[in-house]
Amino acid sequence: MRRAISLASRALGHTSPNPLVGCVVLGPDGTVVGEGFHTRAGAPHAEVEALRAAGSAARGGTALVTLEPCSHVGRTGPCTQALIDAGIRRVRYAVADPNPVAAGGGAVLRAAGIDAEGGLLAAEAEAGNRAWLTAVRLGRPHVTWKYAATLDGRSAAADGSARWISSVESRADTHLLRASVDAVLAGSGTQLADDPHLAARDVPGARQPLRVIVDTHARTRADARVLDDAAPTLIAVGPDAVAAHLPEAAVLRIPLADTGLDLPALLNELYARDVRAVLLEGGPTLAGAFAAAGLIDTVVGYLAPALLGAGPPALGPAGIGTIAEMLRLDVDDVTRLGTDIRITARPRPHSAGRTKES
Amino acid sequence: MRRAISLASRALGHTSPNPLVGCVVLGPDGTVVGEGFHTRAGAPHAEVEALRAAGSAARGGTALVTLEPCSHVGRTGPCTQALIDAGIRRVRYAVADPNPVAAGGGAVLRAAGIDAEGGLLAAEAEAGNRAWLTAVRLGRPHVTWKYAATLDGRSAAADGSARWISSVESRADTHLLRASVDAVLAGSGTQLADDPHLAARDVPGARQPLRVIVDTHARTRADARVLDDAAPTLIAVGPDAVAAHLPEAAVLRIPLADTGLDLPALLNELYARDVRAVLLEGGPTLAGAFAAAGLIDTVVGYLAPALLGAGPPALGPAGIGTIAEMLRLDVDDVTRLGTDIRITARPRPHSAGRTKES
Repeated sequence: MRRAISLASRALGHTSPNPLVGCVVLGPDGTVVGEGFHTRAGAPHAEVEALRAAGSAARGGTALVTLEPCSHVGRTGPCTQALIDAGIRRVRYAVADPNPVAAGGGAVLRAAGIDAEGGLLAAEAEAGNRAWLTAVRLGRPHVTWKYAATLDGRSAAADGSARWISSVESRADTHLLRASVDAVLAGSGTQLADDPHLAARDVPGARQPLRVIVDTHARTRADARVLDDAAPTLIAVGPDAVAAHLPEAAVLRIPLADTGLDLPALLNELYARDVRAVLLEGGPTLAGAFAAAGLIDTVVGYLAPALLGAGPPALGPAGIGTIAEMLRLDVDDVTRLGTDIRITARPRPHSAGRTKES
Repeated sequence: MRRAISLASRALGHTSPNPLVGCVVLGPDGTVVGEGFHTRAGAPHAEVEALRAAGSAARGGTALVTLEPCSHVGRTGPCTQALIDAGIRRVRYAVADPNPVAAGGGAVLRAAGIDAEGGLLAAEAEAGNRAWLTAVRLGRPHVTWKYAATLDGRSAAADGSARWISSVESRADTHLLRASVDAVLAGSGTQLADDPHLAARDVPGARQPLRVIVDTHARTRADARVLDDAAPTLIAVGPDAVAAHLPEAAVLRIPLADTGLDLPALLNELYARDVRAVLLEGGPTLAGAFAAAGLIDTVVGYLAPALLGAGPPALGPAGIGTIAEMLRLDVDDVTRLGTDIRITARPRPHSAGRTKES
């Protein structure tokens, strides 16, 4: 199963709106006879790839799959039928499919007399597919908030200069993050101050993410770098924003909330456009608004070993007034990246921030 | 030598104003015949301890010492003479003694026909004795700035509440830090807001550090917790501050500088009182002033995996206006302490902050 998880991860950034799936087929004697993974939406599912590789050697064998095999006909036929047709006797899958349309594959297999069971290395497989699973369960894209800051939490100096707080290695890692998601978000403040490009650079074979600027008043200039053709772009603006200077196809109207755009509505729009994983970059104000709305699922912080003592903070007001409301995280990983320290963490379930009003 | 360094570290927090020193004596056949370390100021030096343990077995043997043996008569006799008297043939020491009064031991030994050489595991021994070496070289105490903050650099929430941002393990580690230094410093803002005790708690055998409040206007109240008898205390005040409400013995008058007290003058006063290692705790303003003056030698940050989005920052204005002036650090260590991440770093030589005006 660990091999299947590893196979699945090879397509990171390429399968959306589908999940990452890997499959290993063992012959009746337990030797590996076929391997496969889902390479991109529309391409054969992992099980089908692995069964194809195994050929007749799969008969009487075992299939190890990272996700419960689907039982519906999408762009490809149901995997449950492919497993039955190949004469597989035993199926072990890691994580149950949370997608109501595709779920129930385990039951279908058992009804066909196959020994099918889920839960094998579930935590590992879950971690490998976290964005997709979160998105399908919540019905909105998974949001990773990425920031770079000094040890004292500053994302720029007092005069606004920020090049370069973080190390070359951290910046390269950011491009890998961009290539792994479906959309990159930044606020209009960051857009106006830094004119960022937001595409994934120097990542061989990268599928470029959709670039989204959260820009209530349509302040983005017509010659902004995000409006080039390196990747698709949306400028999310308020219902009444004057956006005639922007390409019509790039303008996305989103209703207003108390402060700025209605972020859940924006995420819904993106979900409807097959976005499952979002990278939130740039803008303490926007990051604070996402945190206040409980819309951050993962935090990736690049901490530079440096001090500034002044300058904009990494995170702006998030509706947290006292220590009891602090948004607590669980740390998944701490890694040295060049001179920097990368910290990956996730909001603790039922931590404040999400549940302030309860 | 590694064993000698390890022996030396056993007395951490107990030897000031003397250094940490460890010594291993080998017989002529290379086997260990004696070990010793300097346990506290006034007690025998490490070499003398190790030679005493070795007795006559030291004759014709080798002494491995973490610091160049002293050649002066202080509270104890010169170690060079003890080594000569014991018939030692060969001496290897790690770090040369920077203390002008005690230095030159290597030359004395060589003049007596002993094969004496420095530099063995010098970097490791230097790290083990960093505070004392820095203090003697600079003629002022070594300053460690310790802070606790969230991942976004806040040391308290918007309403000032801060209990407990950091983990139980981080707080216990802070008490170990306190027990390892000669003095703990905090600003009057922290003193008034939190009324901290600043003594080392729950550290068996700890020598309590001197507690110092940097309090230009003598705002510390007579019933402040730092004025109890758990450890000695100084309230550093300006020349004209009205301090009649404070115990006379606790008041230390320090000249004024541009903003607040003259920090180098304060450190000189402490050095004159045998303080070699200072732990700077509490107060973004005071920490900023130390950083601006280039007076921070080591940074220990306890980062809690949490976000606040508002509240006082860990570090206040440090005279850094743009990214080129950023105070860059070299990371020595990253350790998980309970849920927290402890980062230990040192200002890079010739980094900004120290050299802004050049």
